[in-house]
Amino acid sequence: MNLLLTGFEPFGGQTINSSEQAARALSGAGLPDINMRIAILPVDRERGPAALLCALDAALPDAVVCLGEAARRTAISIERVAINLLDFRIPDNAGRQYVDEPIAPDGPAAYFTTLPARAMLDAARAAGAPAARSLSAGAFLCNQVFYTLMHELSRRGARIPAGFIHIPQLPEQVAGAEAATASMALDTAVRGLAAALSALRAE
Amino acid sequence: MNLLLTGFEPFGGQTINSSEQAARALSGAGLPDINMRIAILPVDRERGPAALLCALDAALPDAVVCLGEAARRTAISIERVAINLLDFRIPDNAGRQYVDEPIAPDGPAAYFTTLPARAMLDAARAAGAPAARSLSAGAFLCNQVFYTLMHELSRRGARIPAGFIHIPQLPEQVAGAEAATASMALDTAVRGLAAALSALRAE
Amino acid sequence: MNLLLTGFEPFGGQTINSSEQAARALSGAGLPDINMRIAILPVDRERGPAALLCALDAALPDAVVCLGEAARRTAISIERVAINLLDFRIPDNAGRQYVDEPIAPDGPAAYFTTLPARAMLDAARAAGAPAARSLSAGAFLCNQVFYTLMHELSRRGARIPAGFIHIPQLPEQVAGAEAATASMALDTAVRGLAAALSALRAE
Amino acid sequence: MNLLLTGFEPFGGQTINSSEQAARALSGAGLPDINMRIAILPVDRERGPAALLCALDAALPDAVVCLGEAARRTAISIERVAINLLDFRIPDNAGRQYVDEPIAPDGPAAYFTTLPARAMLDAARAAGAPAARSLSAGAFLCNQVFYTLMHELSRRGARIPAGFIHIPQLPEQVAGAEAATASMALDTAVRGLAAALSALRAE
Repeated sequence: MNLLLTGFEPFGGQTINSSEQAARALSGAGLPDINMRIAILPVDRERGPAALLCALDAALPDAVVCLGEAARRTAISIERVAINLLDFRIPDNAGRQYVDEPIAPDGPAAYFTTLPARAMLDAARAAGAPAARSLSAGAFLCNQVFYTLMHELSRRGARIPAGFIHIPQLPEQVAGAEAATASMALDTAVRGLAAALSALRAE
Repeated sequence: MNLLLTGFEPFGGQTINSSEQAARALSGAGLPDINMRIAILPVDRERGPAALLCALDAALPDAVVCLGEAARRTAISIERVAINLLDFRIPDNAGRQYVDEPIAPDGPAAYFTTLPARAMLDAARAAGAPAARSLSAGAFLCNQVFYTLMHELSRRGARIPAGFIHIPQLPEQVAGAEAATASMALDTAVRGLAAALSALRAE
Repeated sequence: MNLLLTGFEPFGGQTINSSEQAARALSGAGLPDINMRIAILPVDRERGPAALLCALDAALPDAVVCLGEAARRTAISIERVAINLLDFRIPDNAGRQYVDEPIAPDGPAAYFTTLPARAMLDAARAAGAPAARSLSAGAFLCNQVFYTLMHELSRRGARIPAGFIHIPQLPEQVAGAEAATASMALDTAVRGLAAALSALRAE
Repeated sequence: MNLLLTGFEPFGGQTINSSEQAARALSGAGLPDINMRIAILPVDRERGPAALLCALDAALPDAVVCLGEAARRTAISIERVAINLLDFRIPDNAGRQYVDEPIAPDGPAAYFTTLPARAMLDAARAAGAPAARSLSAGAFLCNQVFYTLMHELSRRGARIPAGFIHIPQLPEQVAGAEAATASMALDTAVRGLAAALSALRAE
């Protein structure tokens, strides 16, 4: 299986992004029977989705999983739905903030993931990693990349498993805060994601 | 420095207790210039404090740190105060539940920790582990053992650093839940605790 | 303006539902220049949406707002998107539980609300009621009724403001709990909803 | 019964304080068989406790209940213990911030409330108001006034019911926030406090 796995660059003043760390760690370790290619996407309304489309063209994948970081979450979260909405609470890395705009003016309101979410969830949990399915990927870059991915695959008529997974911040990202929010060690995230990706391959 | 480090047995239907795991891991790894002795205490109103007193007699420590597990916490929590109160939300492992009783009928309302909490906190954070100071250790076995420790040291006139640290549950303890609560990997907890204990020694 | 306002019957072992209470209170008090008709819907996969469609036929409304109760929320929540998914965590009042099924097998993945969400949000806040916009109405009856509403209006080509608003539980619903979750007084909810509905009329 | 009831002035940039509002509302409405006197205390390390002691001298009360506001709490919280610690996260209204200092250098580590907490809790809940007992009043002015109260009564040998109750913020205090934290309507707080104070009188 040719898998395209993406992560994001740091944003919001952080110097690391847990999704980039996880993508690089998974790529470095490798997974049985999976030919993995990774791309690290800019947190930028224009350049983020563009980098994804570029990677799609280069990788000709059989499956696509985009990773993103979600502050305050306690579990690896397999997102179920991407919505056609940009509503940024903070500016992207280019300093632009969008409020209540569609991602694709002519696109449908939403796409469901085509990942086998339940099997991936069960596999992550069996590996000892807290995991959940989520009904909202937000309205920032993560959701935008997720929507862009599903929209493009739909446009191409490509019926491959594709979707988005949020992971918590790393412990070192929250350790300095007076009241530390939830975090997950990179090892735990990578173990859960490896199990989930192996379940994806097995489907 | 002779350090007595304690953890607790599993309770509340769990098969593991993160504080036992952490105590055993720290003891196994060892720490520079610290002669560590560990004891794993029963979650039992009678036998828990008794086991602590027994370990105190056996270890003749220069410092005592008791560890306990706290569900839903996101950080290693250095407890600041032990109160003279038993108010159990669930029964202990002997099936007994106590409501609004004093731990020591003639004891003072509370004791403050004598650990250098701020230095230990800073050290844990610098090691990349989320850490905090906490104003309540609850009213279950953790607080009871903490109070018993401070009361006994006070009775003996022993002016040594002593206190209690709560750590989060491990990822595998919450992974099965439909909505996973916060957790911390054993590696992260051990790294933070090792740094905090080294700061204790350095004081 | 002819407004159809719906609430839900109690469910999940509760004897009251805050959305029914709010709908009845708003109907009893009346709102300037709004001709309000209310319907209280069963928490039942079959009968809930059927009762909504029935009320739509009877009311010939210019606008439709469905209300539902959301445990643990702290604010009146104007839902932005209804998704084509049934995934019940608990059975409905008929004892049936659905997992990962579409609401409308041939329907689109989602619909956005056509309520003027921002104006309604601002009005509720100006009235002193905590209010927010939400990106997920869940996957239980609330979302099902919301999706059914938008799907039916789309089918009919009816371009009227329509959507769903979650409100917190009432204080008396959580007062008995050992650890009370968030609640909102009926007066506060009604004051916020009245302001939001008046903003809807003014659009 | 002569009851001294206190609240606090606004602080932290707020223009109202829910505890002042509640104290004034309870005083205005009156309670059967309770002769109530109120005092509104400055959020000021020096002037706050001084105003309490002044009110104690003036009121010669049979019981004292101090009220304070606690952001993010969902319930009326009867505090169980006051600790001898100042550790301010924000400056008081005089702009001073204290870190890890005792309130009374020669005082004990803590005092337990002498209010009949369980009876008051049950009464508040029976009145439909979310209520709880709390093991920490923090380390800011609320705890300082609570400790000062218990310390002074102890010094005087006055064995009267006395303690501290935290109440949530009012809805209008959080309504403007992008993500509103928990709140409680003044009516709900007053109804619960009235029931709790009546239970205090009945003891």
